[in-house]
Amino acid sequence: MDYYSKQINKLVQELSSLPGIGSKSAQRLAFHILNMPKENVEQLSNAIMEARNNVRYCKECFTLTDEELCPICRNHERDHHTIMVVENSRDLAAYEKTGKYEGVYHVLHGAISPMLGIGPGDIRLKELMQRLQGDVEEVIIATNSSLEGETTAMYISKLIKPTGIRVTRIASGVPVGGDLEYIDEVTLLRALEGRRTL
Amino acid sequence: MDYYSKQINKLVQELSSLPGIGSKSAQRLAFHILNMPKENVEQLSNAIMEARNNVRYCKECFTLTDEELCPICRNHERDHHTIMVVENSRDLAAYEKTGKYEGVYHVLHGAISPMLGIGPGDIRLKELMQRLQGDVEEVIIATNSSLEGETTAMYISKLIKPTGIRVTRIASGVPVGGDLEYIDEVTLLRALEGRRTL
Repeated sequence: MDYYSKQINKLVQELSSLPGIGSKSAQRLAFHILNMPKENVEQLSNAIMEARNNVRYCKECFTLTDEELCPICRNHERDHHTIMVVENSRDLAAYEKTGKYEGVYHVLHGAISPMLGIGPGDIRLKELMQRLQGDVEEVIIATNSSLEGETTAMYISKLIKPTGIRVTRIASGVPVGGDLEYIDEVTLLRALEGRRTL
Repeated sequence: MDYYSKQINKLVQELSSLPGIGSKSAQRLAFHILNMPKENVEQLSNAIMEARNNVRYCKECFTLTDEELCPICRNHERDHHTIMVVENSRDLAAYEKTGKYEGVYHVLHGAISPMLGIGPGDIRLKELMQRLQGDVEEVIIATNSSLEGETTAMYISKLIKPTGIRVTRIASGVPVGGDLEYIDEVTLLRALEGRRTL
């Protein structure tokens, strides 16, 4: 690639290391960036650094946020007695977009996967159990309906059962093998309504 | 989008303003970036700023580069008597990848398009004519085979004809309506070999 110059090559290389961006897209993005007004490039570059530098986990639900408590955990109008357990922050966003769920969340940051060597200790399960010592009425398990998601759901349900707290699983309206993040809002809502006790 | 926090929203918004990146991809990229090691994020952010801050046009061929002369114009082993005219730096890169073209380039940064209000004065045509006062034997017009590309090719050929310099057009091996950048190298080479005098 010595037909571009050093810094352009470096930019293309950096961009193509991002997920879903191949070398063609990286080139296209790079030249788009090179033609953008300097202020906009500065904004983009700063947004990347600032988001990364300030991001942390909400100390309550462990979603990614830039404050001590995320906007949902901070909101007193939400039902803090109902906790929806999701695999990651994008799945949380998917349910938030329905605008109908009024409880709070717990983000596991993964799912149990013996194949990938991810055990119960590698996801935020201990933290979930600690939250259950408070005044919690229901835990809704909204992990993906993949093998790992189902395994995780079963594991959590067995863990919580002894505490007497109601444990539910979103209905199988969610297509098997599908990724929560990409499912339409109506299906997500149907799955929420049809949740069953585990 | 108040379920994410301010800086994450800002990052998602900045990313989704890039071409070919919708709101889903922007979210995916944002969370990928938030989970990257800080050094890598810094590298990405710096690559963007540095490339943009240092980019300029090669004073000879007007491709984007970060030095006064691009690596191709600087190379004395290239044939500086043959100039290939392309619409943009990505098209230059497409021909460079074939590894068989030994001449130099001239990047127009656009094509004549009455529809978009782009006239001959809006692309680097004056600069091309200036280069022709030197010792040039052939001008190969490799604009896209779109309406705008063909119009530009005709216009340039009429402009150069009086100077007596040989003007050629890459062969119609390139599919009509196609974008040079996405064509395989064999087709690009066939088009180069089959070039005809205009």
